[in-house]
Amino acid sequence: MTVTHPKGFRASGVAAGLKPSGNPDVALVVNDGPDYTAAAVFTANRVKAAPVLWSQQVVKGGVIRAVVLNSGGANACTGSQGFRDTHATAEHTASTLRTTKKMMIGPGDVAVCSTGLIGELLPMDKLLPGVNAAVKALAADGGEQAAQAIMTTDTVAKNSVASRDGWSVGGIAKGAGMLAPALATMLVVITTDASADNETLDAALRAATRVTFDRIDADGCMSTNDTVLLLASGASDRQPSLEELTAAVTEVCHDLAQQLITDAEGATKHIAIEVAGAATEADAVQVGRSVAGNNLVKTAFFGNDPNWGRILAAVGTTTAAFEADRIDVAINGVWVCRNGAAAEDRSKVDLSGRDVRVTINLHEGELNATIWTTDLSHAYVHENSAYSS
Amino acid sequence: MTVTHPKGFRASGVAAGLKPSGNPDVALVVNDGPDYTAAAVFTANRVKAAPVLWSQQVVKGGVIRAVVLNSGGANACTGSQGFRDTHATAEHTASTLRTTKKMMIGPGDVAVCSTGLIGELLPMDKLLPGVNAAVKALAADGGEQAAQAIMTTDTVAKNSVASRDGWSVGGIAKGAGMLAPALATMLVVITTDASADNETLDAALRAATRVTFDRIDADGCMSTNDTVLLLASGASDRQPSLEELTAAVTEVCHDLAQQLITDAEGATKHIAIEVAGAATEADAVQVGRSVAGNNLVKTAFFGNDPNWGRILAAVGTTTAAFEADRIDVAINGVWVCRNGAAAEDRSKVDLSGRDVRVTINLHEGELNATIWTTDLSHAYVHENSAYSS
Repeated sequence: MTVTHPKGFRASGVAAGLKPSGNPDVALVVNDGPDYTAAAVFTANRVKAAPVLWSQQVVKGGVIRAVVLNSGGANACTGSQGFRDTHATAEHTASTLRTTKKMMIGPGDVAVCSTGLIGELLPMDKLLPGVNAAVKALAADGGEQAAQAIMTTDTVAKNSVASRDGWSVGGIAKGAGMLAPALATMLVVITTDASADNETLDAALRAATRVTFDRIDADGCMSTNDTVLLLASGASDRQPSLEELTAAVTEVCHDLAQQLITDAEGATKHIAIEVAGAATEADAVQVGRSVAGNNLVKTAFFGNDPNWGRILAAVGTTTAAFEADRIDVAINGVWVCRNGAAAEDRSKVDLSGRDVRVTINLHEGELNATIWTTDLSHAYVHENSAYSS
Repeated sequence: MTVTHPKGFRASGVAAGLKPSGNPDVALVVNDGPDYTAAAVFTANRVKAAPVLWSQQVVKGGVIRAVVLNSGGANACTGSQGFRDTHATAEHTASTLRTTKKMMIGPGDVAVCSTGLIGELLPMDKLLPGVNAAVKALAADGGEQAAQAIMTTDTVAKNSVASRDGWSVGGIAKGAGMLAPALATMLVVITTDASADNETLDAALRAATRVTFDRIDADGCMSTNDTVLLLASGASDRQPSLEELTAAVTEVCHDLAQQLITDAEGATKHIAIEVAGAATEADAVQVGRSVAGNNLVKTAFFGNDPNWGRILAAVGTTTAAFEADRIDVAINGVWVCRNGAAAEDRSKVDLSGRDVRVTINLHEGELNATIWTTDLSHAYVHENSAYSS
């Protein structure tokens, strides 16, 4: 139920000593073809890690035959040496696959992803031997090992599959903090054995991420390293339509995104902010993100407090079309606010469970969007103050 | 050292029973003239509390003779009844001052400010008798009582004075959370016995708030009730130039803004984000706010972690002119980042004290700005999750 579920892929995850814990920290995903088409989405952060700058070039080349990923260091803000290290990692991966696996592969066919602390060089004396071990460990059922090797503060590995008639889409993901609009510290590798050209893959991936990874927000912080890769092997010999492919990729992205939010650092609540009645979808997204990113709203939910006033105050900071005296707000189905003022008794709201649904009706139109977020807890503060990450 | 330091003002603060604690919760500031000119700045939040909507009209009228303020309830998101309650409060204040103090005053001369929980109607049966008591308690040295009566989660009352030759500016402020760019849950009343027309007061107040209250950010949340009022009595018979008046008002605003940040909910650090070398002042402000509002930066400082990588990641989310490989960052004087990569050893940074200075040099131009903020602590989460506010 992972990246090696679609035919034509092998993967592995090994411990190279990058993590002080000794846990697995180098992952490899290889596309054995016959196709090597690919698409990618990267962080919108203008401070981009070396592996992001590298992989942007690789995907422009139109072929990805392997993805090498490491946890234990982001290789971000590491200057020209950091870029040389990423280049060396791709070179070493390609040459090892050529010599030991007889693959026809050059460094320009190898995407690189890194995650961990910003601002420190990677220990190449550990990473390169780790790549050797990862190549040796490649297996047709190695996807779950790869998912484990990219974990940082994640508490569980994230895997997903969408199966179709004769073909499938699989994925792995990591990311537990820095989840934000326009991606977050997430590394995601999605595979499919469908046959599709680069343009089709790109269209499917952008359509999928727009309504999944781009609509989760754990702490409003945008990472330097976010990467979502989609690799197609064509090994199923099926060629789904763009609509079929988009639906399957979206299913995997949605599942992985929900796993990310569920496992977000310190979260005690899984909160859906559903904005309805918006004049435009962009308005609905803007309002949802504003509420999802508001620390006072997030601390209120941590305290099981149905504080709809803080929700209205967050809506008020947006440029969306609305009139303050026409907004309705429900929390877990109780309409605590009608026409911008108190309505049903807030004490009727049951916040004892983990799942929270906030519904905001702007009464301006027909469009809607949902943003998923978490609460702001003591555990979040602890995790992000006690350790550098 | 408060609003009653300038000549021509009386003030009071009384307990009306709005706060469950029984602490003072109704304040009154009266301008005894001979001038009654005024200026004001209000929240940019599009969801505005009833007293904000009311006071916006009052200040347009050009005369403010009294300001009545209450804590214990924001009167925000309270619909048409909330606005009628604000109107009734102004009516009652004016009629009580007319009948018991022989003042020539109508409701349109009375600004109203409220702070506390959003979404609940004020208990008018307690507030109006409180106004009577506040009128009765008016005193030429009552400013500090007024400052105490507007406190919510503030731990100390905020007062300030700037003295000049023959005239002065005084101020009171409240606000401890929801401090954000473009004002915050802050109520501020500034007085001066200088003589100045409304246009001069408006110019001085906007110039002062732009570089003081607009440059502090405790938790990125913008309030529905923020109000900064400037009242001039002309009682000193001095007419300072716009530059002189602006300097004195800025001095008081800066002092009060620093008091607000020092007392911000749960803060253990007082952090100055100084952005230098910016192409424009707007770029410097945007970068400073992005860093100041970043939860990962704020939790790092709570943990005494000089995590400059999180600072660069926050800079990267802005549209300011910069090149990632030219940015320098110092924390408390140690240049931990040069040219976008690690420089001096981060272990040299001493974060044991309360004051933190982050210096970011973009190397794009000559302009700069400083944003003041706080860390994100367990106490912040506790205060904002354990109580509705």
